[in-house]
Amino acid sequence: MSAAAVVLLSGGLDSSTALAWATRRQGWRCHTIAFDYGQRHRIELAAAVRVADALGSLSHRVIKVDLAAIGGSALTADIAVPKDALGEATIPITYVPARNLIFLSLAAALAETVGATRLVIGANVVDYSGYPDCRPEFLDAFARAATLGTKMGVEGGRLVVEAPLVRMTKPEIICLGLELGFDYSLTHSCYDPDAAGAACGRCDSCLIRQRAFADLGLADPVRYRVL
Amino acid sequence: MSAAAVVLLSGGLDSSTALAWATRRQGWRCHTIAFDYGQRHRIELAAAVRVADALGSLSHRVIKVDLAAIGGSALTADIAVPKDALGEATIPITYVPARNLIFLSLAAALAETVGATRLVIGANVVDYSGYPDCRPEFLDAFARAATLGTKMGVEGGRLVVEAPLVRMTKPEIICLGLELGFDYSLTHSCYDPDAAGAACGRCDSCLIRQRAFADLGLADPVRYRVL
Repeated sequence: MSAAAVVLLSGGLDSSTALAWATRRQGWRCHTIAFDYGQRHRIELAAAVRVADALGSLSHRVIKVDLAAIGGSALTADIAVPKDALGEATIPITYVPARNLIFLSLAAALAETVGATRLVIGANVVDYSGYPDCRPEFLDAFARAATLGTKMGVEGGRLVVEAPLVRMTKPEIICLGLELGFDYSLTHSCYDPDAAGAACGRCDSCLIRQRAFADLGLADPVRYRVL
Repeated sequence: MSAAAVVLLSGGLDSSTALAWATRRQGWRCHTIAFDYGQRHRIELAAAVRVADALGSLSHRVIKVDLAAIGGSALTADIAVPKDALGEATIPITYVPARNLIFLSLAAALAETVGATRLVIGANVVDYSGYPDCRPEFLDAFARAATLGTKMGVEGGRLVVEAPLVRMTKPEIICLGLELGFDYSLTHSCYDPDAAGAACGRCDSCLIRQRAFADLGLADPVRYRVL
């Protein structure tokens, strides 16, 4: 029987590609986990369900965790999302404190429950160099902590964190997904969609995504707001 | 100005003593964090508020996190709590997968928000040797991962996990709290309280606590159910 994995799935471009890689390239039996954390763009939760279904996730869970009560970020608190400003800030205002640390911890708990030995995350340091919890050295340290903090560590096993996209550029990520036959129209990346779910086309996430498709000479298949 | 700390506070005997140690012995400015995780004994959340108030917590937060959706434990799932059976099981049925990993991750996020450099946890390996996420090697590995996964790691700082009770026996823990003038009638430990909040006196947690007070020749000041 193939290995089992828990895949963090936001419904965005990166995590969806990571799931496609885990299921279609690695052949792992994948359980997916999404987080309802008070984010303003809850439309991504619907995208995660679509993507999980399209890629044959064995189970999909939405875990509620109230990051808004911790605060400190433009994605959950009452701070304006930056527009038209793809900058090189050290740590972006859209950073949620320790978000991947929290999400990976919940995924590690699920891994113990379903008997998975791998966590798969679409973390990437190329476009998100300002997010401390996307760095490979963090992911390695987390794997060690999670192994020691779960039954696996007691029983001599090892929980591995797989970050297949960590050093890929956005166009490379899109190419990988297309090679694996993944349909990017299912995904959702925008930090500030309208009520009908159309992407704004102006936030960091939209700008990065649009530029990547353009670099490949392709049109981004998601629906953008008409201004 | 004294150091700031985030203290994990369940309202039980251990975490309350850890908070008393952090505020009254170390003199740290403490922010407390409790978790509403679908536990059956929600009465402990009220105890945490009482203890936070009595010990001068600068802020107290209750973070909702839906561990029941992950499952796998008698404290959140529909499995009977073991009674009258203080055993030496390798991993107790009341173990919640990766619970301290998850709670420490949320505390690390709060530490970043409030500018704290220490996390304080009442973890203990003497009575809870079967819980992988109470072991010092896990706590050290977690501190390293959390440092790397937050701004602190990028900025050259270090997040420290303090587990002052980790090698203390339960009577030693109670002595420490009493020395610091802490009133244990404010706490709540029972896994299976009645609707009025009285402890059952028969679950693992009640048995361990009662035995510790008895070893000291003291009466446990919490209210037990009259059978």
